[in-house]
Amino acid sequence: MKKKNIKVNAAILIIGNEILSGRTQDKNIAFISNWLNSKCGISVNEVRIIPDVEKIIINNILSLSKRFKYIFTTGGIGPTHDDITAKSISKAFKVKYEFHNEAYKILENYYGKKKFNEGRKKMAKMPRGAKLIYNPASAAPGFMTKNVLSLPGVPSILNSMIENCKKYLIKGLKTHSTTLNLYTVESNISKKLGQIQSKHKKFVEIGSYPFFRLGKIGVSIVSRSTSVLKLKKVNKELLNLTKTKKIKILKT
Amino acid sequence: MKKKNIKVNAAILIIGNEILSGRTQDKNIAFISNWLNSKCGISVNEVRIIPDVEKIIINNILSLSKRFKYIFTTGGIGPTHDDITAKSISKAFKVKYEFHNEAYKILENYYGKKKFNEGRKKMAKMPRGAKLIYNPASAAPGFMTKNVLSLPGVPSILNSMIENCKKYLIKGLKTHSTTLNLYTVESNISKKLGQIQSKHKKFVEIGSYPFFRLGKIGVSIVSRSTSVLKLKKVNKELLNLTKTKKIKILKT
Repeated sequence: MKKKNIKVNAAILIIGNEILSGRTQDKNIAFISNWLNSKCGISVNEVRIIPDVEKIIINNILSLSKRFKYIFTTGGIGPTHDDITAKSISKAFKVKYEFHNEAYKILENYYGKKKFNEGRKKMAKMPRGAKLIYNPASAAPGFMTKNVLSLPGVPSILNSMIENCKKYLIKGLKTHSTTLNLYTVESNISKKLGQIQSKHKKFVEIGSYPFFRLGKIGVSIVSRSTSVLKLKKVNKELLNLTKTKKIKILKT
Repeated sequence: MKKKNIKVNAAILIIGNEILSGRTQDKNIAFISNWLNSKCGISVNEVRIIPDVEKIIINNILSLSKRFKYIFTTGGIGPTHDDITAKSISKAFKVKYEFHNEAYKILENYYGKKKFNEGRKKMAKMPRGAKLIYNPASAAPGFMTKNVLSLPGVPSILNSMIENCKKYLIKGLKTHSTTLNLYTVESNISKKLGQIQSKHKKFVEIGSYPFFRLGKIGVSIVSRSTSVLKLKKVNKELLNLTKTKKIKILKT
């Protein structure tokens, strides 16, 4: 993993009718986003969830891969008819959809020659030139095509593979964050908070999120920046604000 | 709510840095999607998660509102500086961003004249001509502008408001679904499953999702259709498949 002192961004493309229909609660977005920021200094700037429809996958792959440094896809790389991610990416980039020699060997070895049936073989078909993302949980590899990294949809398997993406990624500047949990309501601090944000808007992004805990209302103030120094400055101003307004801080 | 025998679609636009960064696990997508399908017969066909950046919100509102019957936005309608959804939608549709008389009265009444400060007043500012979505939990209303319905990001508040969206929506055909949980692996049934899907692709959509339960591997086969009759036909064929392959079905 090369390190560069630059901001590196990514998008996540969740491919799956089960997420769109609400049947399945997605867990991959938060996991990938947290991992990318904390381990690679990469910020996720957009997420899309789309159905298992070839034309829609192709359009989204083409549009996102132009706008972001990396695209992570989840879902659609298994053995069944609704797994069309590899084929769709091949079509998007106009490369052949064919057996990947190493992936074929890995899967043949994992299942044994006798049980290596048609569905299992399908998991070795990828866009020509794809680089493998090894899968310690269930063998079937993910793959990287141009700037698109394709992972499975099952969270436990995806989680087991994520470290194997690292070698393909350029490391960017990590976004640090601090959180202040205040026992107040947003509208009590919104004016002053807006002033602090305006003053530091170039380097620090301040978010305000209401919470409910033990029957009390509060606000989490989350400040995010690639500069620890700038973050400390903002935090000092936020602490001054709580003193002026006599707001209790929730210790976590 | 008018009823029409047509397919009605929608998109969800999640506006919020806290979801993109992975700090907060989204819960609104599955909730809205389930509610829309079960109560209104509306299918969610795309979801996007984007940051609190005006230009990005405008672009997404314009592109999604052209392609889908309804757009549901969540987040960014509170009193703080990072709440820019109403202003951005006004700019997108080139209408004035101004106080909504009824919303202003609701909020003034809720907080009392003395405590109705600048931040709270901001929550009454909306795109001109917006229709209100009442909020039984915390007063501040959501609003509908053209085909865009804007709701807050806090799940408990959003949940309390969702029924108040109904009167603005045309009712479509409900998508019914059946699930068969099988104690097998996907690659054991993928070929036959693909054949059943091909045969019924016009009316029924079959999805295959691996699961792990009590140490056993299984596959959930989810069939979805607006026709209950067609769904029954497919289910019969799926049950035949389990008999032929001697697959145990998990009773739930």
